[in-house]
Amino acid sequence: MEKTGADALPLTVNSTEKQETICIFGTGDFGKSLGFKMLQCGYSVVFGSRNPQMSSLLPRGAEVLNYSEAASKSDIIILAMHREHYDCLTELVDPLNGKILVDVSNNRKINQYPESNAEYLAQLVPGAHVVKAFNTISAWALQSGTLDASRQVFVCGNDSKAKHRVMDVARTLGLTPLDQGSLVAANEIENYPLQLFPMWRLPFYLSSVLCVFFFVYCVIREVIYPYVNEKTDTTFRLAISIPNRVFPITALVLLALVYLPGVLAAILQLYRGTKYRRFPNWLDRWMLCRKQLGLVALGFAFLHVIYTLVIPIRYYVRWRLRNGTVTQALANRDNPFSTSTAWLNDSYLALGILGFFLFLLLGITSLPSVSNTVNWREFRFVQSKLGYLTLVLCTAHTLMYGGKRFLSPGILRWSLPSAYILALIIPCTVLVMKLILIMPCIDRTLMHIRQGWERSSQHSKSAMNGKSDI
Amino acid sequence: MEKTGADALPLTVNSTEKQETICIFGTGDFGKSLGFKMLQCGYSVVFGSRNPQMSSLLPRGAEVLNYSEAASKSDIIILAMHREHYDCLTELVDPLNGKILVDVSNNRKINQYPESNAEYLAQLVPGAHVVKAFNTISAWALQSGTLDASRQVFVCGNDSKAKHRVMDVARTLGLTPLDQGSLVAANEIENYPLQLFPMWRLPFYLSSVLCVFFFVYCVIREVIYPYVNEKTDTTFRLAISIPNRVFPITALVLLALVYLPGVLAAILQLYRGTKYRRFPNWLDRWMLCRKQLGLVALGFAFLHVIYTLVIPIRYYVRWRLRNGTVTQALANRDNPFSTSTAWLNDSYLALGILGFFLFLLLGITSLPSVSNTVNWREFRFVQSKLGYLTLVLCTAHTLMYGGKRFLSPGILRWSLPSAYILALIIPCTVLVMKLILIMPCIDRTLMHIRQGWERSSQHSKSAMNGKSDI
Amino acid sequence: MEKTGADALPLTVNSTEKQETICIFGTGDFGKSLGFKMLQCGYSVVFGSRNPQMSSLLPRGAEVLNYSEAASKSDIIILAMHREHYDCLTELVDPLNGKILVDVSNNRKINQYPESNAEYLAQLVPGAHVVKAFNTISAWALQSGTLDASRQVFVCGNDSKAKHRVMDVARTLGLTPLDQGSLVAANEIENYPLQLFPMWRLPFYLSSVLCVFFFVYCVIREVIYPYVNEKTDTTFRLAISIPNRVFPITALVLLALVYLPGVLAAILQLYRGTKYRRFPNWLDRWMLCRKQLGLVALGFAFLHVIYTLVIPIRYYVRWRLRNGTVTQALANRDNPFSTSTAWLNDSYLALGILGFFLFLLLGITSLPSVSNTVNWREFRFVQSKLGYLTLVLCTAHTLMYGGKRFLSPGILRWSLPSAYILALIIPCTVLVMKLILIMPCIDRTLMHIRQGWERSSQHSKSAMNGKSDI
Repeated sequence: MEKTGADALPLTVNSTEKQETICIFGTGDFGKSLGFKMLQCGYSVVFGSRNPQMSSLLPRGAEVLNYSEAASKSDIIILAMHREHYDCLTELVDPLNGKILVDVSNNRKINQYPESNAEYLAQLVPGAHVVKAFNTISAWALQSGTLDASRQVFVCGNDSKAKHRVMDVARTLGLTPLDQGSLVAANEIENYPLQLFPMWRLPFYLSSVLCVFFFVYCVIREVIYPYVNEKTDTTFRLAISIPNRVFPITALVLLALVYLPGVLAAILQLYRGTKYRRFPNWLDRWMLCRKQLGLVALGFAFLHVIYTLVIPIRYYVRWRLRNGTVTQALANRDNPFSTSTAWLNDSYLALGILGFFLFLLLGITSLPSVSNTVNWREFRFVQSKLGYLTLVLCTAHTLMYGGKRFLSPGILRWSLPSAYILALIIPCTVLVMKLILIMPCIDRTLMHIRQGWERSSQHSKSAMNGKSDI
Repeated sequence: MEKTGADALPLTVNSTEKQETICIFGTGDFGKSLGFKMLQCGYSVVFGSRNPQMSSLLPRGAEVLNYSEAASKSDIIILAMHREHYDCLTELVDPLNGKILVDVSNNRKINQYPESNAEYLAQLVPGAHVVKAFNTISAWALQSGTLDASRQVFVCGNDSKAKHRVMDVARTLGLTPLDQGSLVAANEIENYPLQLFPMWRLPFYLSSVLCVFFFVYCVIREVIYPYVNEKTDTTFRLAISIPNRVFPITALVLLALVYLPGVLAAILQLYRGTKYRRFPNWLDRWMLCRKQLGLVALGFAFLHVIYTLVIPIRYYVRWRLRNGTVTQALANRDNPFSTSTAWLNDSYLALGILGFFLFLLLGITSLPSVSNTVNWREFRFVQSKLGYLTLVLCTAHTLMYGGKRFLSPGILRWSLPSAYILALIIPCTVLVMKLILIMPCIDRTLMHIRQGWERSSQHSKSAMNGKSDI
Repeated sequence: MEKTGADALPLTVNSTEKQETICIFGTGDFGKSLGFKMLQCGYSVVFGSRNPQMSSLLPRGAEVLNYSEAASKSDIIILAMHREHYDCLTELVDPLNGKILVDVSNNRKINQYPESNAEYLAQLVPGAHVVKAFNTISAWALQSGTLDASRQVFVCGNDSKAKHRVMDVARTLGLTPLDQGSLVAANEIENYPLQLFPMWRLPFYLSSVLCVFFFVYCVIREVIYPYVNEKTDTTFRLAISIPNRVFPITALVLLALVYLPGVLAAILQLYRGTKYRRFPNWLDRWMLCRKQLGLVALGFAFLHVIYTLVIPIRYYVRWRLRNGTVTQALANRDNPFSTSTAWLNDSYLALGILGFFLFLLLGITSLPSVSNTVNWREFRFVQSKLGYLTLVLCTAHTLMYGGKRFLSPGILRWSLPSAYILALIIPCTVLVMKLILIMPCIDRTLMHIRQGWERSSQHSKSAMNGKSDI
């Protein structure tokens, strides 16, 4: 285990010769920013440029040379140039031989080229050790020193020593390198910074459509209709009353849509009799964004909770309560206590609170750091058992409230059914289908299919051995 | 640093020969699912089977051969079979020599065998590089592509190159490999997927017992007693009023139980005069689940907050308020404003809010990703200073509320003391003991013991040097 | 890939010879605790001591020898001594040659010595492989087995094999080693455990000052003034009413202070015409603690929400409502419904709720585990778009409330302006400046500067190519 052996890292930085030199090809913005940061962190920086004379405004303390001279100064060469200019490197194959080439490039579109920039570079300069890194870091953030966002630098490369040297550079710059394996990972790393919440799009559009639909529906039913019929101005309901009708409905429908694809998948497997066939694409995509759907639903549920808790502070509610009381006092009417109303009202509130509490638990367990600490069995327990319990509680809560409203005679005068009736269709369907699926005979068949038993196969007895699905 | 050197990874995947071959022994469900996923990710897959002819329903594109033929096709062999069938590998010692053997097996019980499956495998096939991996991943999740749960693959093995190759395979499958060190870690990795919230069990049972006890107690006192004595039907209190009495009490007792073991440990150390003796087992186990106890307590506190905020929306409360107002109006009674009542009421609410806020802060800092960013000193500050402050605030909040109730004459007519009196026993005990422990003389003795000073020892002066406990 | 090759790790732990020996120099508290833990985890432990005879109270099962004898027993030597005693190692250069020296020392002050202890050690004993580790772990936690806090062990060292062996030891002790690269990282690792929330200090002091100022201001205006002028005792307002005025104001000002430095930086860059100059130090420091400022603001906003929701439960509010109703009933006065008041009141509440909801979203995305899963583009979207929307909503909410209050004639009788007026100065300034900055012409100039275009430069056309700032 000697230092001069094959394994001893050559990066032993003695404090006397701390000034490791790093070469940056390209004097564009990212190159300058990176050089600036590296100078700050104690490296000495050499820029490589096509026109060393023309390069202006480089950070103080940096040298500018032509490409081959610059390359000779350092083991590590950072390519801060666009892929389109990589062909100029073909002339530098000799000076770059054995060097660590760090590809920091990004594309303009996802999967713009057939292969990743880093793999393309590795083909162009086969003698160099290509490492992909730093492309997820913003030049502006490097420059201003305000790395509020992720400090993670995804690093990949086929040569582990080269990779570790680049990771050490990243650490010295105050960043957190993450080893992503060999250069095949470069494609994903290059696509990463171009994404803008890809998994959140479907849930976002879906919830927008649901929200707008129910909002318009409720406005027609509760604002326009009374205005046309009775000339009463209830537009102030737009601020709180109607949102507080739309939000819980949207939350409930979205929560049901989280559990619908699982039920559909089970039905599909029962119908096909095997699990060894892919689901249709739409079902796949739906299943992949269930977590995001659930979190959007939780957002709406949260808004519903606050909108509800704020009720007694509202002027309208206080005015109504006060006037009711005054009328009662003036009329000297008796207002007997109805135990059944108290029961209904309290249990409806309790169901809602418990449902929201479980929903919040589900949300917390889907935080990355929390879900990483639970194993598959625990995750299934939480997401399936607790998830269905949440759905049952929330559906019951809505049923009780919607039922109460629906059964009160005044509400029947309008032709449109209450939005709650529409809201309950999907959750009730999901729950009924789930109830059928967990009937013992169907459940047993499904479990056999999911453990790899085919309908007619008898030889894979091992599949039944315990919980592990080996 | 040449590619052909000892350190160059042989996994250089040229885009022309991307089709790395992986061999899977065993055609059970997990083997099939893994093969299916690997085929999807661009690997070519060879199955090894006892009866290559009998193996049906394998993923399309995969070859099936007998064990030794299959082993010759690939460097990496994944053993998707139960430990019980490992003995058949003894005949394959030669073809498996120098290969990477990936053990993916799970057991049916925690610590079923004296040594881990992977270590047993390493003994059976000493010439192979055994790597433990993939056992925490579910076959169903691999198959359906819906890896909502943890994508973490714990990997361990004695040969670092073999380990890194397996980690790269895991990354290609879209999983997150985590290096767990050498093969001794296999035991823990094999036990991991069999756990179902082991640390949460004690807190869960404890809180269930507390909840049920206080619920029954309150039902007897507030529903059954009035019904028997005065024939009044107050059963509607079961939905909100009584839970909102049980939840805060349970939360407070659980919070006190979080701090009780620390106090007991300090007393034990003071009594023994040394810290170099183990605590009794029950105390150890108790101390290890303090975080979970605290989080369960936070859950109950959260429920208490929502149950309380919902009060003014309740029919019962509105009815009572309205009737009170009407009675007052009709009687034309004066209702003078009592500043002392306003003070009491407001400060009791404020104490509760601040206590809940601190409690929530404690909960947030116990999120894995947050607690990983604080150092030991900061953690101690938060959990000990803020924790005790929370306990003091919550106890004071309960004291004020319970006291108010206790002092009101109407409550004394029943023989059972209010549940609040019982609830306050443990928190008050903890706080009193803590107060005694932080008295200067006792605190100094305790600090000496904890810094490794023995009562009679004089030679370890270095222990007093600063905060570090070296 | 043979085990005896340069790359095969020598840590192959056969179950037969599990008893790896580890040597600990120093019999202070940390040494004892570490030895105790290692004995528990199956290692055999040898202590090295200046006076082997004098060392008492060592964990049972451990041997005590003099330094050179102890060193000969093990590859790994843990130095549990203070840096001040490192000079005694100069005599041991020979026995320590080729050994792994683990530096666990901490200092008493941040940056106490010019170089880190580990680098100093590496100079003293150049033949050994120095690894920094375990210094962030508490002796007390090791001893008692209750590692509630972070189990992370930061490890750094120049020899990767030595580092990996130490990381394996850490894993065996139940800790989570984190590779921090080469020995240059030792300085940061040594400073880490000495910190006590360094980034939270400025936000904490700032919010304390704001809180105290607004509290005193409100007390003078709402408690002392009425008492002096009208002899009315409104001291009970100190518990809820006044905090619920101070908290939202502080939250709003802090939130505005999160966005002020960004605006100032943009103005500075516009003025300078370049981004390649450092910001003044105060601006740098301010920008680095924006996240913490925002989280403190969120804490105050949360308190404001709960203080507000609790309003209808308060005795004072109930008393006022009841008395108002009784007066109205007795006077038989009419209380017509005002649609405009309902609109104002409801929209003011709705703005507050939506603002708080977005604020909470911002808070959740700043959790480490969440912010690590978003890329730079997503982070910027959330923190900038959503952040400014939050600020706009919260400012509008305050404006509506403060405006309502300000316009009511009763409030004008006192000479001091309402605290809301003061509170709105900074948020409004920030929003106005931001509005100016996003005017097309200014925005374009700023974007050019930030993409590395200088005012007079024309040659860096590549800077305009797409989103990447290369």
